[in-house]
Amino acid sequence: MSIQSFFPPRRVLMGPGPSDISPQVLQAMSRPTIGHLDPLFINMMDEVKSLLKYAFQTQNEFTIAVSAPGSAGMEACFVNLIEPGDKVIVCRNGVFGERMRENVLRVGGEAVLVDDEWGKPVSVDKVEQAFADHPDCKLLAFVHAETSTGALSDAQALGALAKRHSALTIVDTVTSLGGVPLKVDEWQLDAVYSGSQKCLSCVPGLSPVTFSPAAIEKIQSRSTPIQSWFLDQSLVLGYWSGDGKRSYHHTAPVNSLYALHESLVLLQNEGLENAWQRHKAMHNKLKQGLESLGFEFVVDEAYRLPQLNAVYVPQGIDEAKVRSELLNVFNLEIGAGLGSLAGKAWRIGLMGYGASEQNVALCLKALEEKIK
Amino acid sequence: MSIQSFFPPRRVLMGPGPSDISPQVLQAMSRPTIGHLDPLFINMMDEVKSLLKYAFQTQNEFTIAVSAPGSAGMEACFVNLIEPGDKVIVCRNGVFGERMRENVLRVGGEAVLVDDEWGKPVSVDKVEQAFADHPDCKLLAFVHAETSTGALSDAQALGALAKRHSALTIVDTVTSLGGVPLKVDEWQLDAVYSGSQKCLSCVPGLSPVTFSPAAIEKIQSRSTPIQSWFLDQSLVLGYWSGDGKRSYHHTAPVNSLYALHESLVLLQNEGLENAWQRHKAMHNKLKQGLESLGFEFVVDEAYRLPQLNAVYVPQGIDEAKVRSELLNVFNLEIGAGLGSLAGKAWRIGLMGYGASEQNVALCLKALEEKIK
Repeated sequence: MSIQSFFPPRRVLMGPGPSDISPQVLQAMSRPTIGHLDPLFINMMDEVKSLLKYAFQTQNEFTIAVSAPGSAGMEACFVNLIEPGDKVIVCRNGVFGERMRENVLRVGGEAVLVDDEWGKPVSVDKVEQAFADHPDCKLLAFVHAETSTGALSDAQALGALAKRHSALTIVDTVTSLGGVPLKVDEWQLDAVYSGSQKCLSCVPGLSPVTFSPAAIEKIQSRSTPIQSWFLDQSLVLGYWSGDGKRSYHHTAPVNSLYALHESLVLLQNEGLENAWQRHKAMHNKLKQGLESLGFEFVVDEAYRLPQLNAVYVPQGIDEAKVRSELLNVFNLEIGAGLGSLAGKAWRIGLMGYGASEQNVALCLKALEEKIK
Repeated sequence: MSIQSFFPPRRVLMGPGPSDISPQVLQAMSRPTIGHLDPLFINMMDEVKSLLKYAFQTQNEFTIAVSAPGSAGMEACFVNLIEPGDKVIVCRNGVFGERMRENVLRVGGEAVLVDDEWGKPVSVDKVEQAFADHPDCKLLAFVHAETSTGALSDAQALGALAKRHSALTIVDTVTSLGGVPLKVDEWQLDAVYSGSQKCLSCVPGLSPVTFSPAAIEKIQSRSTPIQSWFLDQSLVLGYWSGDGKRSYHHTAPVNSLYALHESLVLLQNEGLENAWQRHKAMHNKLKQGLESLGFEFVVDEAYRLPQLNAVYVPQGIDEAKVRSELLNVFNLEIGAGLGSLAGKAWRIGLMGYGASEQNVALCLKALEEKIK
């Protein structure tokens, strides 16, 4: 056996994530590793917390990055907030709502399902009805931006609804954070998780999370232990605490956190509103181009995500073959359909650093060549 | 708020991990991110599997890297192999044995404890007695190389003992993999986890694991669901399968896996036996130097790890002050004592790329200056 070093090509990443990454972030990642208990690293972790608070628009003290991908961030929210027997309203309008249901079951909770068609947002009326039918539900779980379809749900209305029913919310913002408005405090959201590899344009492998004081109170008043040691946020909090009494929990992924820090510095420097605006502007340009090529969007304009454009594959086109040609000829990655959209749709991402004129132009010209 | 980019200094990492990292590995990490379902990346993941099989000395098909730190790899072994009510013999001779007990409890299992003094290896006789007293134990969990003390246990004897009692083994090799002999197949070990940031000299954040066919059979014949979705290895296996039918589970930490690939290529090129030999030779040199400075080792020579040297802090020395001076003056990190050794011992790591003449010389000269 003699395996050689791996040299990847320079792809343009316009799928559902990971997204294109700024050279500055990749460079930050390769800086010398220092110890995870080094005072300089502890200070950097504190900066990551501050930067994440800004990105999430929250004052929550418990705002950190879980040392694992978004699906672990999701699980962190469910295992910490749910106890066996708890009833949870779970909204399903795509792949990730279904994954939330899986999480509720594995924690021993009971899922009350609110189903909406794939490509539609979560129906606030149906959730209202679910609270009326199940007044003992003390948790509402939903996906803000469904990565499988590109539909945006009204997190503000859902957050307010949950509060009227004295329920906590668990909110998936994996694809929304940094790409569309998200205001954790103003919208009264409680346990919110995201991913590093979407609109933050960082490497995959980290999951930013934030917990409101009400969520922390729920964790602290549990009558049963948290089933995961690695994701037990009461322990993780001790590791991320900035009071100089950091207690060892696990070894942080030092270099990935360098990358997250840098990507958040870039977001800070651009400004959150400007980043949202850029995503919107690039989406409009892509949309015009796609429509003039004859593409139809899966999601209605009213609740379409600018950063994730699901379009139906034109009739008579071998979708896998075209994706493969885009990759091999143009080094351009776009995403396949997922779940019920598999084989029927493409997902074109405009996320973070990749929401650029350059990427829009490449994507439109390459698609034009391949589908005409 | 205006936070600047983070530029770490070049530390020399001689603590318990993360360890010094080769510039080649850091460089690999900063290569352009490609999609986690890109055919080139899938091929690279297959290479990582082959390289890990070599490192673990196993033919186990299920040999992968969990997308999270070693403590998640630990939890992956426990949640997959243990069902509620299962009795597990847990050997405790340091911090990580105690963490194993925590894991057993959180899975709803029952831990039968075999305690040995910190700094001593696990007593094979006591484990034999535990099997005699509890013939219904079908699992044995122990730490091969205790990072908290630097003691090496006899994994070969413990593996054989478990097999005689038809029990499966869960083995922590976080600090042993790549640093001392470890032969998963020959020693009949079943669920074995490690960390990227010790003797593999990769960045922290990944946990190599390997499961024997017997462990897989146990997972497949469970009567209760696996409580973690993220760590459910029956799902993860579909993601790492090399048969072209890769099913999406989570998004792999692409760039961290570039780094692991590169660190394993370096190990392959050096040769496993040569790497073990180098750790031993550098340990001998460090030991001579430390002894002539008057240091005493925590662990007897017979079962002392070459890659983790726990020594008592000399009387009258302010241990935290000296560690801080080593860091600030020499950019040299050594480790504090953990658990019952806190404040009493230092842990000096000679791991992977850091097991070098250069590091030994720096450490001895810097310590000499600071304790004389």
